[in-house]
Amino acid sequence: MTDADIPESHPRYESLLTRHRIEAGVEDGITSRQGLIAQGRGEAFDYLLGERTLPSADGAARAAAAHLLLADHPVLSVNGNVAALVPGEVVDLAEATGADIEVNLFNRTAERMERIADHLREHGASEVKGLTADGRIPGLDHERAKVDADGIGDADVVLVPLEDGDRAEALGELGKVEVVIDLNPMSRSARAADVPIVDNVIRAVPAITEHARELVDADRETLEGIVADFDADETLAAAERAIREGSDEAEA
Amino acid sequence: MTDADIPESHPRYESLLTRHRIEAGVEDGITSRQGLIAQGRGEAFDYLLGERTLPSADGAARAAAAHLLLADHPVLSVNGNVAALVPGEVVDLAEATGADIEVNLFNRTAERMERIADHLREHGASEVKGLTADGRIPGLDHERAKVDADGIGDADVVLVPLEDGDRAEALGELGKVEVVIDLNPMSRSARAADVPIVDNVIRAVPAITEHARELVDADRETLEGIVADFDADETLAAAERAIREGSDEAEA
Repeated sequence: MTDADIPESHPRYESLLTRHRIEAGVEDGITSRQGLIAQGRGEAFDYLLGERTLPSADGAARAAAAHLLLADHPVLSVNGNVAALVPGEVVDLAEATGADIEVNLFNRTAERMERIADHLREHGASEVKGLTADGRIPGLDHERAKVDADGIGDADVVLVPLEDGDRAEALGELGKVEVVIDLNPMSRSARAADVPIVDNVIRAVPAITEHARELVDADRETLEGIVADFDADETLAAAERAIREGSDEAEA
Repeated sequence: MTDADIPESHPRYESLLTRHRIEAGVEDGITSRQGLIAQGRGEAFDYLLGERTLPSADGAARAAAAHLLLADHPVLSVNGNVAALVPGEVVDLAEATGADIEVNLFNRTAERMERIADHLREHGASEVKGLTADGRIPGLDHERAKVDADGIGDADVVLVPLEDGDRAEALGELGKVEVVIDLNPMSRSARAADVPIVDNVIRAVPAITEHARELVDADRETLEGIVADFDADETLAAAERAIREGSDEAEA
């Protein structure tokens, strides 16, 4: 089955597409066992959110787009699940914001690194960083600390979708602006972020791209205003309310 | 790493044990990809429940024990995740209640059936049903409908932990008493059950066994009283409140 075999009109289109891409990711050696378990955790939180993008999450996606456009050196960090779920969407976002793409794995092996880089190139990426691994994030185990010195090591804004809590916290302490996509608003990753986007990565990455395309000609003052108006704590609280109470923010 | 390598005093003991057993289940060809994703969904709901057994879940475990003791022919249905997570605990429950054990897989292959049966025998099961497959549950696809005629086919009370919604509903329509263990109180499986236990299988199966050992000499009237007093809808509502609102039932 390819993506094209799933009719967009299907009521469970997004869910079937996600499941199909994750299964294909396992076949291709991209998605790990831990990645499958993480996928399940995300499904449960998305179910409780009503499988929709909250207004607060769309606001966070807009703030993320402004940060990426303001950055001197934005980098999109890609792990196994991100590569499996949104490879083309990450390439589109990199093009819309002038960001680098860097592969970064919690369970790093040379083989998975290569497979993920190949997968991203097949989806249109011109350059994929992460294989040089000549930089380190302080405070993490050796393998998990590896980054490219001229990639995440040099970035001022980093997008880290579906990131492990330890790594998100260590990145947050480096003084970089950190944008996290995570469906659990109580997770350490979401709480460590300057901009937490509590949404399914399959909806959030295209949403950032859409905002970036709309804002690409905006002046610096407009972008800085969007960044200044964003409130991470309020975004997390709104998402937790939606999950806990099933409340519909739009009517609040 | 074996179970014994994880110190029981570790604050994340149960979580580490669960993760370790699921990983070992994959190595042994017992846990499927779908099983790993399901494990992740369960982790998210357990996290929201506070990784504890609600008083309502303990009440459901007691009602389940009463049903199993009252039954003419109780059967415990075991799938890949159940076999990986609680093989010895299922054998203990079968012994405490005189129940049969039957392997039943959503993604049935002869190889996985054999591996799971072997795994249960290694954990002390004397007889494992499910391999004859000479009975059918109406309303399900051919492979998913297979049961043993002298096992689930003949049972009056069935415990189905972590069951797929289609199968739970089809079993529920057969007029058997159905006990389900599921961490999502909104799932079709939980809603199809006569007795839904909204709890982690790693806590729930030993809890049923404990109640069964305590009730083993109780008279029929006492057991029937426990069964009659149990309210499935109230149990589901209490669990959903705990997940949504983080409420502590014990103080309600």
